[in-house]
Amino acid sequence: MNETQYSGLTIAEAQEKLLALQGRISAYQHAVELLMYDGMTTAPKGTAANRAHSLGILTEEIYKLSTGKDTVDLLEYLDEKIKGAPDEADPKLKRMVYLMLKDIRQMQKIPMDEYVAYQELLVQADDIWHKAKEQSDFPMFLPVLEKVFETVKRFAGYCAPEKDPYDYWLNEYETGLNKKILDEFFGTLKSRLVPLIKEITAAKQVDDSFLKGDFPDYKQEKLAYFLMDKIGLDRDHVGFATTEHPFTISLGSHLDERITTNYKPHTFVSSMFSVIHEGGHALYDTGSADDLAFTVLDCGVSMGIHESQSRFYENIIGRSRGFTAAILPKVKELFPETMKDVDEERFYKAVNKVEPSLIRTESDEVTYCLHVMIRYEIEKMVLSGQLEVKDIPVEWNRLYKEYLGVDVPDDRHGVLQDSHWSGGNIGYFPSYALGNAYGAQFLKKMKETVDVDACVASGNLAAVNDWNREHIWQYGSLYEPNELLERVLGEKFDPGVYMDYLEEKYRDIYGI
Amino acid sequence: MNETQYSGLTIAEAQEKLLALQGRISAYQHAVELLMYDGMTTAPKGTAANRAHSLGILTEEIYKLSTGKDTVDLLEYLDEKIKGAPDEADPKLKRMVYLMLKDIRQMQKIPMDEYVAYQELLVQADDIWHKAKEQSDFPMFLPVLEKVFETVKRFAGYCAPEKDPYDYWLNEYETGLNKKILDEFFGTLKSRLVPLIKEITAAKQVDDSFLKGDFPDYKQEKLAYFLMDKIGLDRDHVGFATTEHPFTISLGSHLDERITTNYKPHTFVSSMFSVIHEGGHALYDTGSADDLAFTVLDCGVSMGIHESQSRFYENIIGRSRGFTAAILPKVKELFPETMKDVDEERFYKAVNKVEPSLIRTESDEVTYCLHVMIRYEIEKMVLSGQLEVKDIPVEWNRLYKEYLGVDVPDDRHGVLQDSHWSGGNIGYFPSYALGNAYGAQFLKKMKETVDVDACVASGNLAAVNDWNREHIWQYGSLYEPNELLERVLGEKFDPGVYMDYLEEKYRDIYGI
Repeated sequence: MNETQYSGLTIAEAQEKLLALQGRISAYQHAVELLMYDGMTTAPKGTAANRAHSLGILTEEIYKLSTGKDTVDLLEYLDEKIKGAPDEADPKLKRMVYLMLKDIRQMQKIPMDEYVAYQELLVQADDIWHKAKEQSDFPMFLPVLEKVFETVKRFAGYCAPEKDPYDYWLNEYETGLNKKILDEFFGTLKSRLVPLIKEITAAKQVDDSFLKGDFPDYKQEKLAYFLMDKIGLDRDHVGFATTEHPFTISLGSHLDERITTNYKPHTFVSSMFSVIHEGGHALYDTGSADDLAFTVLDCGVSMGIHESQSRFYENIIGRSRGFTAAILPKVKELFPETMKDVDEERFYKAVNKVEPSLIRTESDEVTYCLHVMIRYEIEKMVLSGQLEVKDIPVEWNRLYKEYLGVDVPDDRHGVLQDSHWSGGNIGYFPSYALGNAYGAQFLKKMKETVDVDACVASGNLAAVNDWNREHIWQYGSLYEPNELLERVLGEKFDPGVYMDYLEEKYRDIYGI
Repeated sequence: MNETQYSGLTIAEAQEKLLALQGRISAYQHAVELLMYDGMTTAPKGTAANRAHSLGILTEEIYKLSTGKDTVDLLEYLDEKIKGAPDEADPKLKRMVYLMLKDIRQMQKIPMDEYVAYQELLVQADDIWHKAKEQSDFPMFLPVLEKVFETVKRFAGYCAPEKDPYDYWLNEYETGLNKKILDEFFGTLKSRLVPLIKEITAAKQVDDSFLKGDFPDYKQEKLAYFLMDKIGLDRDHVGFATTEHPFTISLGSHLDERITTNYKPHTFVSSMFSVIHEGGHALYDTGSADDLAFTVLDCGVSMGIHESQSRFYENIIGRSRGFTAAILPKVKELFPETMKDVDEERFYKAVNKVEPSLIRTESDEVTYCLHVMIRYEIEKMVLSGQLEVKDIPVEWNRLYKEYLGVDVPDDRHGVLQDSHWSGGNIGYFPSYALGNAYGAQFLKKMKETVDVDACVASGNLAAVNDWNREHIWQYGSLYEPNELLERVLGEKFDPGVYMDYLEEKYRDIYGI
């Protein structure tokens, strides 16, 4: 060990310094997150450049605090100490040191000039993607998308030259994940989903005409607050706003969470399920143990686990027979024009209508994973060199026809619909499908000790929330996703459980 | 000059470093201001502790950046360079160095432990004041208020032992100000205001019954946006929200300004004039020259000048015959229930109704300065030792009877009404009265080149705003208040002009 300012500190003294450093970083992150939140919610529209000025300076400061020599010295000192007596070290401390060093070592492998160039490329890509989507013009997006894919592949080579590049990125978004696991996962799903969808499509369609009408914002807002209370969010710590796209963000720590929604004037269910979905993210975040606040452990461990919670509340709870019945009186009170004669069963079936479609974010529970699978197949092919970026639209449209039976009319409703690739998030999509499957397996486990159906039907989710808090939320990022799954489930991840759930639910709804 | 890292830099190089430093500080200020704004507007109510954590860390960082050794070295180096060739130095640079060094030298005179203790005292004082006001309990507030007055006096002794303590603080809030000037100023006002109020009180009162009714928030919000546009605010750079008390804040620079208002359900004029008042502050801030952004010059120079702008728009413009006539159609459209039969003259007179009352913030243009004068007399007596803090309420009530002829029923409607003393802002009140008087003198000057009445009556304030921008706004803090006044007016400050304005306007309204 080299001599540094930390040499000679006890592990407790060094731990205290590390906590202070994380507290410091979290204050800067609070500022950056709030600046972004402000930009997306209430800031006047001409103020982006003013915010960019401050964001640039504060982000650079976070980078320095997170990766500067002092920080590296402290982390390496603690790492050595922990390795010297691994059984004595506090598991939280071990995990903090591990996560912080991992980020630093990854950053050190990417040449700084290439990293900066990539950040600039992403700003440009986001801008071009917006315009290209608006004009449904993939060729406009192509040059910058090619650069994004090329950079992502190159960076994987810097960080893990021994690994397949796509495997590297899959593991970045969901530790432990790789193509082998996903091929199996999606294989199981595809083999059971495609026939299920065929059967549903052939069956009598459910009626959801009463979900359409004219629903003013102020009434949809009332429903949003009602739902926030209903799923058990603590509104003293969870704020609410409207934005172009719904999202969830923690400001500073899990003690201040914000969710947003977007009202569509002709259907109240879009915002309704957005609120429950974002509410699920917020429940996970705010359920973090209080002593994790202002540390790197104070956030969900992965996108997959995060989506398991948001989609658990949105679909498994929110689209259940019990929950839809529990909220129906409020829905009727707010929207009597179309809802007054609708009974519990019709409402339940309507919000679960299955219909193969073009847009992932608007798709139903059954077809959703096929949308994800198409993106997975394409990313896999591009990163392995089997598909050129310029040929993505043709392959996209072919897969939509094959998996979902729909014809893509233009790139706007096809390959340009998602923002992920312009943001460099390649390898991110699979976590959505994984989240669905994790959620179903959590449900099965939960049912061993909680009468979930009775709890949901009662309209009080306390028992469900307590189970999630005890088994998942409180740990923040303490355990890797696969480690957490095994601790919670006592068994390996099994996508068959998710398919069992879907088949049982939708065979009942469609009488097949 | 001592050797530092800056020795040998050209003045241009050092100036560039100073600009970068100010840009850095402004990013931190942006974060701190936005955190406070969020707390006062949309943050969930249980999140104050989370915000305090980040505010503490970021505020400390601003302190270090503003007063650290590197900063002092840079400023002193520039100061020497400027003194070596005073005529060659850029006036903006000179002023930045002067203002930044002034703050540092003041901070250096106050022992750090006493400064920290005072900050803690103010947090406590604010909390106790809120409770004491609610319960109308001055004795509850007394011990902490005594400490605030004692500390303020002690700090004046540290910073300017040669000066009278009240003169020191008056000069801090408005450079160049002292008791001698204010005694003269208030003497003039009092000698003409008291008889004027007597005549008005004896005259036939104007009818303002139609200003009362039931006015829903969403309609008052429409009026607020209408007024923002009407007075010429650029809504691409000026945001709007509702809060308990109206205020104006710049976020990061003059490029992102926010104003707030508060709706009273039974009168629309309260929010109406709050919007115009805060809008006046925002016009001043956003009118700053763009090259002042991210420097210490990018803000109004003093409270007095700031209030001159806010009260100019609120009263001189907003309560003028021309402006009230110009907005009346919109007011009738929004509030036909009480306003449909009201003509221009009745509306004009109603919003200018004079009535001696208890609360400063709700008082009319004529009696307003008397409220301020009472606070001035009390602060002066306490700081000179002529009045003990415990005896303030008796003196307060006596002065309200003497100046305004009203009986103070309890401390809540008396000495506990304002937050300023609990915030340590002793010497701040006079700027409100000065602002009124500055505004009248600006109006007189403006009328030499602008047909103000025609401009206001046309409902388009462009010519008025252009004059203010050219003569006042663009300079930010470049000139001291008295320097700015003389540049704008070409003559000394003369409170008689303000009295002429009031007498002319109110003799006409009351037919006296």
